[in-house]
Amino acid sequence: MDCKKVLVEAEGDLDKAVELLRKKGMATAAKKAGRDASDGLIESYIHLGGKVGVMVEVSCESDFVAKTDGFKQFVRDIAMHVAACSPVCVSREEIDPALIAAERKVAEGQAEGKPANAVSQIVEGKINKYLSESCLLEQAFVKDPDQSVQDLLTAMIAKMGENMVIKRFARFQIGS
Amino acid sequence: MDCKKVLVEAEGDLDKAVELLRKKGMATAAKKAGRDASDGLIESYIHLGGKVGVMVEVSCESDFVAKTDGFKQFVRDIAMHVAACSPVCVSREEIDPALIAAERKVAEGQAEGKPANAVSQIVEGKINKYLSESCLLEQAFVKDPDQSVQDLLTAMIAKMGENMVIKRFARFQIGS
Repeated sequence: MDCKKVLVEAEGDLDKAVELLRKKGMATAAKKAGRDASDGLIESYIHLGGKVGVMVEVSCESDFVAKTDGFKQFVRDIAMHVAACSPVCVSREEIDPALIAAERKVAEGQAEGKPANAVSQIVEGKINKYLSESCLLEQAFVKDPDQSVQDLLTAMIAKMGENMVIKRFARFQIGS
Repeated sequence: MDCKKVLVEAEGDLDKAVELLRKKGMATAAKKAGRDASDGLIESYIHLGGKVGVMVEVSCESDFVAKTDGFKQFVRDIAMHVAACSPVCVSREEIDPALIAAERKVAEGQAEGKPANAVSQIVEGKINKYLSESCLLEQAFVKDPDQSVQDLLTAMIAKMGENMVIKRFARFQIGS
């Protein structure tokens, strides 16, 4: 993306320029979202001398992009993030309904005694917080907590010009 | 294990000595089997430039054994084996009953027209073959097809003197 052009568009305001770049990135990413991402890369991250291990699969559209240093680094970053932040699943669609039900029970217990009209609001708030903390895409990126993993992915799609999907991950920990 | 002692016991017969060593190994391994294997190692094997990835967790009893070169090599070998042989699960107990049911249906179709008393034998034979080919522990070890992965594990337990369990693995492949 042409940063100078964006700065001119933002009339020299750096914050505004960043905001514009983000919007442009999201628009570009949205355009790519329907495209078939059948190539990609599998990367692992073994931590603490083999006591924690993570493997991730990130797909993109071509082997050409899969082989770039930028994409490789992105996949490594995601693996490192998963090691550090222990997400439960990639996105909300994948989470086990039993986990949400269990979380709801706990939240309802905590909201007991509150006014009836507040209970549902409290419970939904807690469920929402649980989901955003459990889903990889919604977690704050460990190397830059100002952006979510989804933000990082969106920026990557805009930069590389290919659709990309964080397909799956596995996280093993000795004794868990 | 004292190889000379075993050779004497086998009266110099090398094949008999190997057989004796195996039996002794199995006896040693059986003695360890009840012991808690709460330490261990996670290892990964990324193949074909990131198009296939495997991660395995093998537990043992102590960090001391987990850190030995022998154990590390064993875990690496298992990861490589999984990359090459694509097992479905570690052992028969873990296999999805739906997979067996699907396999049974195919086998019954193939046995159609045979004498009724032969059908059940054919079907059970095919199911058994499917299971032994799908379960990691029953597969022929890729680096030495004369022994199964279970044989390798048993020998490792006997050699190291600690209980060991191949706990789990994940195998990712781009486009699958």
